[in-house]
Amino acid sequence: MNTMYFTEEHQLFRKSLQEFLNKEVVPHINKWENDGHIERFIWKKMGSMGFFGINYPEAYGGLDLDLFYTVILLEELQKINSGGFAAAIWAHCYLAMTHLNAQGSQQIKEHYLTPSITGHKIGCLCITEPFGGSDVAGMRTTAVKSGDHYIINGSKTFITNGVTSDYLVVAAKTKPELGNKGISMFVIDRASAGITATKLDKLGWRASDTGEIAFDNVKIPETHLLGEENKGFPYIMQHFSLERLIMGVNAHARAEYALEYALQYMSERMAFGKTIDKFQALRHTLADLYTDMEICKTFNYAIAYRLNKGEYVVKEATMSKLKSTKMADEVIYQCLQFLGGYGYIEDYPMARLLRDSRLGPIGGGTSEILREILAKIIIDKKEYKPAT
Amino acid sequence: MNTMYFTEEHQLFRKSLQEFLNKEVVPHINKWENDGHIERFIWKKMGSMGFFGINYPEAYGGLDLDLFYTVILLEELQKINSGGFAAAIWAHCYLAMTHLNAQGSQQIKEHYLTPSITGHKIGCLCITEPFGGSDVAGMRTTAVKSGDHYIINGSKTFITNGVTSDYLVVAAKTKPELGNKGISMFVIDRASAGITATKLDKLGWRASDTGEIAFDNVKIPETHLLGEENKGFPYIMQHFSLERLIMGVNAHARAEYALEYALQYMSERMAFGKTIDKFQALRHTLADLYTDMEICKTFNYAIAYRLNKGEYVVKEATMSKLKSTKMADEVIYQCLQFLGGYGYIEDYPMARLLRDSRLGPIGGGTSEILREILAKIIIDKKEYKPAT
Amino acid sequence: MNTMYFTEEHQLFRKSLQEFLNKEVVPHINKWENDGHIERFIWKKMGSMGFFGINYPEAYGGLDLDLFYTVILLEELQKINSGGFAAAIWAHCYLAMTHLNAQGSQQIKEHYLTPSITGHKIGCLCITEPFGGSDVAGMRTTAVKSGDHYIINGSKTFITNGVTSDYLVVAAKTKPELGNKGISMFVIDRASAGITATKLDKLGWRASDTGEIAFDNVKIPETHLLGEENKGFPYIMQHFSLERLIMGVNAHARAEYALEYALQYMSERMAFGKTIDKFQALRHTLADLYTDMEICKTFNYAIAYRLNKGEYVVKEATMSKLKSTKMADEVIYQCLQFLGGYGYIEDYPMARLLRDSRLGPIGGGTSEILREILAKIIIDKKEYKPAT
Amino acid sequence: MNTMYFTEEHQLFRKSLQEFLNKEVVPHINKWENDGHIERFIWKKMGSMGFFGINYPEAYGGLDLDLFYTVILLEELQKINSGGFAAAIWAHCYLAMTHLNAQGSQQIKEHYLTPSITGHKIGCLCITEPFGGSDVAGMRTTAVKSGDHYIINGSKTFITNGVTSDYLVVAAKTKPELGNKGISMFVIDRASAGITATKLDKLGWRASDTGEIAFDNVKIPETHLLGEENKGFPYIMQHFSLERLIMGVNAHARAEYALEYALQYMSERMAFGKTIDKFQALRHTLADLYTDMEICKTFNYAIAYRLNKGEYVVKEATMSKLKSTKMADEVIYQCLQFLGGYGYIEDYPMARLLRDSRLGPIGGGTSEILREILAKIIIDKKEYKPAT
Ligand SMILES: Cc1cc2nc3c(=O)[nH]c(=O)nc-3n(C[C@H](O)[C@H](O)[C@H](O)COP(=O)(O)OP(=O)(O)OC[C@H]3O[C@@H](n4cnc5c(N)ncnc54)[C@H](O)[C@@H]3O)c2cc1C
Ligand SMILES: Cc1cc2nc3c(=O)[nH]c(=O)nc-3n(C[C@H](O)[C@H](O)[C@H](O)COP(=O)(O)OP(=O)(O)OC[C@H]3O[C@@H](n4cnc5c(N)ncnc54)[C@H](O)[C@@H]3O)c2cc1C
Ligand SMILES: Cc1cc2nc3c(=O)[nH]c(=O)nc-3n(C[C@H](O)[C@H](O)[C@H](O)COP(=O)(O)OP(=O)(O)OC[C@H]3O[C@@H](n4cnc5c(N)ncnc54)[C@H](O)[C@@H]3O)c2cc1C
Ligand SMILES: Cc1cc2nc3c(=O)[nH]c(=O)nc-3n(C[C@H](O)[C@H](O)[C@H](O)COP(=O)(O)OP(=O)(O)OC[C@H]3O[C@@H](n4cnc5c(N)ncnc54)[C@H](O)[C@@H]3O)c2cc1C
Repeated sequence: MNTMYFTEEHQLFRKSLQEFLNKEVVPHINKWENDGHIERFIWKKMGSMGFFGINYPEAYGGLDLDLFYTVILLEELQKINSGGFAAAIWAHCYLAMTHLNAQGSQQIKEHYLTPSITGHKIGCLCITEPFGGSDVAGMRTTAVKSGDHYIINGSKTFITNGVTSDYLVVAAKTKPELGNKGISMFVIDRASAGITATKLDKLGWRASDTGEIAFDNVKIPETHLLGEENKGFPYIMQHFSLERLIMGVNAHARAEYALEYALQYMSERMAFGKTIDKFQALRHTLADLYTDMEICKTFNYAIAYRLNKGEYVVKEATMSKLKSTKMADEVIYQCLQFLGGYGYIEDYPMARLLRDSRLGPIGGGTSEILREILAKIIIDKKEYKPAT
Repeated sequence: MNTMYFTEEHQLFRKSLQEFLNKEVVPHINKWENDGHIERFIWKKMGSMGFFGINYPEAYGGLDLDLFYTVILLEELQKINSGGFAAAIWAHCYLAMTHLNAQGSQQIKEHYLTPSITGHKIGCLCITEPFGGSDVAGMRTTAVKSGDHYIINGSKTFITNGVTSDYLVVAAKTKPELGNKGISMFVIDRASAGITATKLDKLGWRASDTGEIAFDNVKIPETHLLGEENKGFPYIMQHFSLERLIMGVNAHARAEYALEYALQYMSERMAFGKTIDKFQALRHTLADLYTDMEICKTFNYAIAYRLNKGEYVVKEATMSKLKSTKMADEVIYQCLQFLGGYGYIEDYPMARLLRDSRLGPIGGGTSEILREILAKIIIDKKEYKPAT
Repeated sequence: MNTMYFTEEHQLFRKSLQEFLNKEVVPHINKWENDGHIERFIWKKMGSMGFFGINYPEAYGGLDLDLFYTVILLEELQKINSGGFAAAIWAHCYLAMTHLNAQGSQQIKEHYLTPSITGHKIGCLCITEPFGGSDVAGMRTTAVKSGDHYIINGSKTFITNGVTSDYLVVAAKTKPELGNKGISMFVIDRASAGITATKLDKLGWRASDTGEIAFDNVKIPETHLLGEENKGFPYIMQHFSLERLIMGVNAHARAEYALEYALQYMSERMAFGKTIDKFQALRHTLADLYTDMEICKTFNYAIAYRLNKGEYVVKEATMSKLKSTKMADEVIYQCLQFLGGYGYIEDYPMARLLRDSRLGPIGGGTSEILREILAKIIIDKKEYKPAT
Repeated sequence: MNTMYFTEEHQLFRKSLQEFLNKEVVPHINKWENDGHIERFIWKKMGSMGFFGINYPEAYGGLDLDLFYTVILLEELQKINSGGFAAAIWAHCYLAMTHLNAQGSQQIKEHYLTPSITGHKIGCLCITEPFGGSDVAGMRTTAVKSGDHYIINGSKTFITNGVTSDYLVVAAKTKPELGNKGISMFVIDRASAGITATKLDKLGWRASDTGEIAFDNVKIPETHLLGEENKGFPYIMQHFSLERLIMGVNAHARAEYALEYALQYMSERMAFGKTIDKFQALRHTLADLYTDMEICKTFNYAIAYRLNKGEYVVKEATMSKLKSTKMADEVIYQCLQFLGGYGYIEDYPMARLLRDSRLGPIGGGTSEILREILAKIIIDKKEYKPAT
């Protein structure tokens, strides 16, 4: 499979990344999972290794590599079994930074994108609000122009890196009366007066901080508007393709991790006088699940290839997330079962995996919202176009 | 439905139990879930209310009520959303105490069963071992007769109430060379020298302590043998019917709880200008899941009715656990989804429910083992007979 | 299980019915399946045996037996593997005759119900129309009062026994402007001028004739109105409970038939040196499916018991049909698989079973419509009340 | 998607093929489906158009085109909704002819392959026997060398084109004592004395003839051995990759056909005052199914690409058939449902599609056998190597 998309350079990158993660990250994972907090030093280390800049312009310190380097980064982050650590990284790199890179002015990029690449600044992306995540157009946060500033009021919730990030990329209504045609994007410095954030206690992604954030008359310079006013909705939609594909790739990677772990476990665990990988019922289930994973992986790679070429793959990325996240949940549910009682124990990987994986069909657009989008494309022949 | 099996007395019992739980238990649940420990006082309170004796003989302080009182107890325990608290209670009442009551001598009953009913002593049932849970006959723990004592050596794991219980009902081999024909049951006092226990960190059932236990030359009086020597396996198998039905009932009850909570939530949560219980796709899913739950519930009641009449329902109880636990996992998975991001937050009930429910297809015989049993009954026409 | 609902008399009835079917019906089934036509003589034979009158009043020649005799009749009809023959019988007995018995005048009953019981007259129930089956209220057939007659115009389709029946129980609008509040029921003699019918070519139920019927100024006496004018919709809804439970019972019975056949086949068919019922993957699948069937059966019996007692089980009967028909389709799909290539051959029972079973989730209210009804009951707390 | 694999030439080919099929084939389909027989003239017409030679060498009259032409041929054959017609064609082109081309001598190729390409001779591939299809190594047909001839005895069943073909590619044991190491392949002329064949009555694929064949001392020249003696098993296994991918491609294509038909139907059918494609529950189901189909299609194309490059894709082709055929069955089951009662009528496409599609998980290796193979590859790390 790999030879279709992955060159030798890709493989070298994967290997060095694996070594880095095993040496620098894995020893801390349990601590971070327990504390619900990832220490700052690792951000800087990863930044200094260039991992945050792989698909960003060299002008801002990036490496400008193709999308399959990102795929590798995502896959390997899943395979150290901390959905929360992975989320913290990719929410920074691919939610917050994507907006900076695409719509930020040169000044904004120098101020936020460059230190994001080096790991000195951490970002987050704030779209969801307490009264509604699915209905993006229904958001209530406002940004009112006042002289050369905007005043932000409102609240956001479920924000990854929401408590610890240094800046926030925030969607707010500049023309509330226009619904989704009145949304704009801003970058807001954490230091701004009027921001408070509290941490949420979650089923999984426990190493990642997920915050509820209140903006109380937060005053920001007008230069912190990203792109054009009232174009926020198309920007968000456009970047969703990448986000959804990312979540699809994450899903196939953690499913693969679960399957490989289960395979190993089953080749060692004995019951009724044989290793349990000799029981036909388990063998067939495993063959089925492995196949489901391989098919999603192949699909996701094909979509990554097309996205990398510049195609607008909103339909396919939506499909990728919808199916890969469900597949991952099912694979992990069953791999936990393969471990019997040990599957239920937190010292073994499946318990955390199950908790972490369950976010897949919720975050970044629930499965129901994805089906809505697909129904519009497939049934109503709606055409989604890139923001211009 | 209820009128078919539940009398007015049953309903009164249910109501007073609900009141008790809401007043005495619910305020402590979060603490116990966090601490991984249930405080002693509640055992005594529940004992003094008679809840532990509902289906035990009056001679030992019980109430000798029909099985539908037990069904009510189980159902209501699920509906306060602590699988761990519920498990602690029913493992005591229906795993440990069932063996005492069925095979214990009068002396043993007076010494262990009576205080178990009053809540002064807590029990546990130790069958599973680190090297094998499914393959009961493969257990390695031994009990060697030496004068008027037995010497117990070996280890057990995944034992509910394994660390905090006052006595342990333990399966051990008295004739290892005979496989499942050489197993005997014992009651062992926690105070006996040579017992050590450590607590396991689990995905769910967090209020319940699950222990790994080592027996190092534990000396117990021969009178602590339960029933006859070498009859342990048939005893275990016989009591599995009740255990499996219990786990089936638990499953339909927690699914019902999840559905009722989701119904309420969905009638209040707005998206796109309406409450989300107006979206047809969600409505149909909910109708489907509710139906699955109702069908399992009806089945479980019918089996309880037959078990209560004294029928040997090994096939049906196996079916009950196999399907109800899977149904519950699926219902809860989807109810969590109905809550969107809030489903993922531990302050809302679904996260814990998902974690707790996942034990269903593992404990008390994995789904695979249940299918093995059913295949033997249905395909090979094997007849399971009660131990005599 | 059976002892809960079935007495010795029931069992004797079942046995004699089985003998009758094997002797009088089975030898003709293949012919009728090929011809798409059931010969008249068998109707008379079955009538003379009393099979059509088991739950009808003695006054009209019936036997007035409890609903479990009907359950037995339905089950045994499924087990001779002609969904079409079974449908012809139960559409006559439980669709057409139910309306006659419940809403017909004494005169109508003497003229139509009595010969229906003896098998001299065959009935059908005409609700569905070419432009809409699910939306009953949207029907277009009209009945216009003119003196002491009604004039019927319109068309019906998918009508079981639609071409060969002697009379038709027909829903038509007497007040079209009132939607479902303007529907009335009529019995129409086949001999009436202006009726034409053509037969449809179907995937399954091939022994049964399914007709498209046109009413062109059909003039019928006003006495052929069943019950009150404009009460047709509540009548239909009320009788749906029985119809849906019937379809649920049919489903569990044909699933059981498929499973029993597969069990036998698998105990004889060899592959890789053993009978295929030794392969664990097949064994587990079979155990799972058998369990699904048993659970539906237990549910259906419980609902039959309550319906027999006079409870209004619209929710439960809807659940019965929704889940049992899906279960049957899945069981049969997989049982066909167990036969390998032979499953695909019409000389073996699974091919026809698959074709016949597929009607389950469509006829008598599609699964989607059933979910709509359940959603209204469960989510909107809508109460369906019996017609008064 | 297409642009990744399909050039403009491919698209032109597809268009001209579609026109051919619509003009020359479609008008006869219903007749052939009813008669269970495909008339000879169409074989010759298709041969003269070059369709049978697209991936065969020019030396024998072929066009030597890449595998995506074959993919197009397969896809378009599915989209005229006669699984039987399609099967007759591809069993000829890709089961029988693949063996001739790969292992036939030049003389055999001239005598059989060339007229197969022109459509003057029709072939079939005979592996399955009445006593075992899955267990290929257990076959009982023998080929005994006698001078410069072989004498063939035994029987085969379920053979596509088994009654009407002009030659038969047959697996038989030359060294029965060696199991799968003693199988050889032969081409046998229909005219040979001692061959009898009878036609089977099937659930679907009704236009295709499926035959049971008896070989009674059939004498064939030794030159009709294909390849080397006792290498039949590896030859069969090797060619299975193509066969299984073909069946995967067929499956995604017929699923796509079903979905497109349903989309069209649903955009026209009214219920409750709107077109049924406005009901969210149906929309979401359709979006899900469409996605399943797209993902399988993308996977199948990726595997075709690799097979075309000469990779040995036994694992991937097995995955393709396993999942695509199940997906197709599920898609078609549900698309039939979308049509309501019309789905059950043979004049509408879904009934036949359902019947035809059901063969997918049986023919060319049952799903269970595919899981066996995958389990060996994934769990036991077995490596399948091409025959040398
Ligand atoms: C751990 C975590 C991290 C997150 N990180 C971020 C982040 O970094 N930034 C950010 O902006 N957001 C983030 N989110 C929020 C996430 O994107 C939202 O939770 C999600 O979009 C759903 O929104 P909601 O929770 O408000 O659910 P709701 O919108 O309230 O949905 C409730 C239910 O209704 C369903 N529903 C809604 N509308 C329809 C409809 N039309 N038809 C059918 N069903 C419908 C939904 O599918 C869901 O099942 C995060 C969430 C979590 C849990
Ligand atoms: C929270 C918790 C509480 C528990 N409480 C108790 C308790 O109070 N007392 C007690 O004695 N035990 C208890 N258990 C143990 C429980 O009963 C076992 O975990 C269970 O029986 C499985 O055993 P195992 O973990 O050794 O799995 P294994 O036996 O190692 O099984 C591993 C996997 O192999 C499968 N498998 C095994 N044999 C076969 C076969 N022949 N065919 C196909 N598949 C097979 C299993 O289904 C499983 O998927 C508890 C477990 C947990 C997690
Ligand atoms: C063999 C056979 C025998 C039959 N016998 C009889 C008989 O004896 N008497 C009789 O009166 N009828 C009979 N029927 C008709 C049967 O009851 C109808 O086919 C059925 O009710 C569906 O109606 P329809 O075919 O018009 O489908 P439609 O109503 O056109 O439905 C098409 C699709 O849309 C879906 N749909 C419709 N409304 C909604 C909604 N609101 N939300 C979501 N999805 C929706 C449906 O579920 C279905 O999937 C028979 C049908 C068959 C095939
Ligand atoms: C319409 C049609 C066309 C066909 N065309 C051809 C053709 O052109 N040429 C040809 O040679 N053959 C053909 N076949 C035959 C087809 O390949 C076989 O039917 C198929 O391989 C299964 O073999 P069987 O029918 O003997 O089933 P069996 O081998 O008897 O299998 C019965 C059941 O047992 C299961 N089973 C078997 N072994 C195992 C195991 N180890 N573990 C678990 N489950 C197992 C199977 O999966 C199946 O469910 C055709 C079949 C049909 C129906």
